[in-house]
Amino acid sequence: MKITVLGSGSWGSALSIHFGRSGFEVVQWCRELEVVDYINKNRENPLFLKGFKYPITVKATSKLEDVFSKPVELVISVIPTQFSKQFWKEISSFVKEQKFICASKGIEIETLKTLSDVYEEVFGRKDNYYVLSGPTFAKEVAAGLPAAAVIAGFNEEKTLSLVKTLNTKSFRLYASSDVRGVELGGALKNVIAIATGISDGMNLGFNARAALITRGLHEIKKLGRALGAKEETFFGLSGLGDLILTCTGDLSRNRQFGLSIGRGSGVVDRKFVVEGVYTVKAVIKIAEKLGIEMPISEAVYKVIYEGRNPKEVMKELMARPVKEENY
Amino acid sequence: MKITVLGSGSWGSALSIHFGRSGFEVVQWCRELEVVDYINKNRENPLFLKGFKYPITVKATSKLEDVFSKPVELVISVIPTQFSKQFWKEISSFVKEQKFICASKGIEIETLKTLSDVYEEVFGRKDNYYVLSGPTFAKEVAAGLPAAAVIAGFNEEKTLSLVKTLNTKSFRLYASSDVRGVELGGALKNVIAIATGISDGMNLGFNARAALITRGLHEIKKLGRALGAKEETFFGLSGLGDLILTCTGDLSRNRQFGLSIGRGSGVVDRKFVVEGVYTVKAVIKIAEKLGIEMPISEAVYKVIYEGRNPKEVMKELMARPVKEENY
Repeated sequence: MKITVLGSGSWGSALSIHFGRSGFEVVQWCRELEVVDYINKNRENPLFLKGFKYPITVKATSKLEDVFSKPVELVISVIPTQFSKQFWKEISSFVKEQKFICASKGIEIETLKTLSDVYEEVFGRKDNYYVLSGPTFAKEVAAGLPAAAVIAGFNEEKTLSLVKTLNTKSFRLYASSDVRGVELGGALKNVIAIATGISDGMNLGFNARAALITRGLHEIKKLGRALGAKEETFFGLSGLGDLILTCTGDLSRNRQFGLSIGRGSGVVDRKFVVEGVYTVKAVIKIAEKLGIEMPISEAVYKVIYEGRNPKEVMKELMARPVKEENY
Repeated sequence: MKITVLGSGSWGSALSIHFGRSGFEVVQWCRELEVVDYINKNRENPLFLKGFKYPITVKATSKLEDVFSKPVELVISVIPTQFSKQFWKEISSFVKEQKFICASKGIEIETLKTLSDVYEEVFGRKDNYYVLSGPTFAKEVAAGLPAAAVIAGFNEEKTLSLVKTLNTKSFRLYASSDVRGVELGGALKNVIAIATGISDGMNLGFNARAALITRGLHEIKKLGRALGAKEETFFGLSGLGDLILTCTGDLSRNRQFGLSIGRGSGVVDRKFVVEGVYTVKAVIKIAEKLGIEMPISEAVYKVIYEGRNPKEVMKELMARPVKEENY
C-alpha cells in the first residue's frame, strides 16, 4: 500500500518511519525544505524527531503536486488541529477516493468542531475518513517499541479491513466505529492533564493523582455521551489509555503547564500553544449548555481564566457534597 | 462515632490516624504488644508506619476483650486477606449489630471467595458488611494528603449514610451498592500490576504500559461482569483508580515482582507473599470455567507457572489477531 503522511512533526515522522519499516511505500510531506533535504540525504528529521533513522522506503517532499502525482491509497494527516481546515482546503482537489486517516488530536476551537466535522465541511463527505488515536509517544513508536491504538471509521467492515492492512507486531491496532468518541477522548484528556499537573506540582501525591484521573475520565465520559459518543470508547485506548499516558508518563505541554501552576509560578506562557488551555474553554461552554457537571474541568477553568488560587480550588473540589460514585 | 480498627499494618495505622484526627474516638487492635505500647507511649507505629504521629484520640490495645468492652459503632477490619476468616471467627462472639467495614483487598485463594462471602460464612449475615477500597497509599492518607475512595454496601441508603458520617475534606468518599465489583477490582489489579512491572522491567516504554493498563482493565471488567459485578464499578476509584496507582505510582510487591522478572532475574522469591501470584492462578481457573479470554492474565500465568520466556510471551500478546476494541 502506498501511504502519504502529511506533516513534519514528531508524530508524522514517527508514523512515516514505522510504516516505512513495516514494508509500506511512504511519502512524507513536510513544509520545511531543510527538513525534506535532510530526511532524503541523511535519513533523519533533526528538527522534530532527532536520533531516529528513516528506512529507505520513505521519501520526503515539500511539493504537494509530487505527493499526489502517483496514485496514493492512504493519506495520513498529522497537521496541527487548528491549521487542519486551512491545509485540507489546499489539498482538497487532490484528495478523492483515497482512505484518509487523521492522526491529529484536538477540537477546532473557533467552531468547537471535532476534525471529522471539519473534514466533512471541507471535502463534503466522510465515508473515507478515519481517526487514529491512542497512547502513543512518537519517540517510542519510532524506536519500534510496542504500542497499541485505535482506528475508528464510519463503516465497520471497511475499518476492520484497514486495521488488518496496517496492523503490525509492534504497533497493534484495534477497530472502532465510534469516530466521535475517539476524537473527543484525544482532545478532552488535555484538560485533565493540566489538572493532574497542578496537583503534582502542589505535591498532593499519587492518591490525589489517581483520583483526579479516574474522576476526570468520569466527566469526559459524561460530556462525550451527551455529544453522541459511545461510553465504552472512553474506557479504551484512545480515552483511558491516552489519558494515563499523558497524566503519568509524559511531560506534554499540558502537563508542564499544570505543573508550573501547581508549583506557584502562576498562569504563565499563555501565548504558548497549550491545547488544553483552549479546550477547557470549549468544554465549559458545552457543559454549561448541556447542563453537565464537570467539577475538575471547572476547577482548571477557574485557575486559568478567573485567577483563582489553585490551593483553594483544590480544597473546594474535595469539599463537594458526597454521593454515589456513578452519578 | 466510636471506631475500632483491627490490624496493625500500615493501612490500619493510617486509617486509625486519619479517623482519630477527624474527631472520631478510635481503638486500634494490634497483635504485637510492643506496637501497642509504642503507640500509646510515643504516638507512632515504628514497625509498620514509621514517621507519622498518632493523635491522642487513638488508643491501641492487644486485648480483644478491651476492644469490645464498650459499645462500638463501627468495626474496620484490615487483617490480611488470607487470615481474615480465621481472625473473624475469633471475634465472632463480639461482633453483633455494629457496622463492619472490610478494608483488606484480595480473594481467599483456597476457596476463591471474596471477603464479603467469607464474612457471610463466618457471621451468617451481610447486611452490616461494607467494603472500603480505592487508590490509597497508606503514607499519603496518614500525612493528610487528599485521597478519594469508595465504600460499598448491600443497602444503598445505609451506605450513603455511612459515607456521609465518615467523609472528610482530605479523604473523600463515594457510595456504591456493588460490593462484589469493589472487592474484585482491588484483587484483580495485582495481576495487571505484575504484567506492567514485567513490561517496565523490559523497558518496553510508556506506550506499552498505558496499553497494558487499558487492556488489563478490559479483561478485569469482563471477568467481573461474569461474576455478577457491575461493569461501571471497574471504571471507578476502586477499579481503574487503584489500578493506575498500583501500576504507575507504586512499588508494591506485585509491581516489584514483575519488574524483577522483566529485568531478567527470573521468577524469584515465590515464597514471598505476592498477592497477585496467587490471584492469577484463581483468575485463570475462573476464566477457563466461564470461557472468558484474558490474554494479559494468561501471559502472566505462563511466565510464572509455565516458565515461559517473558519476551516471547509479550511478543505473542502483540501478535494476536486484530479485532474490534470492545470485544
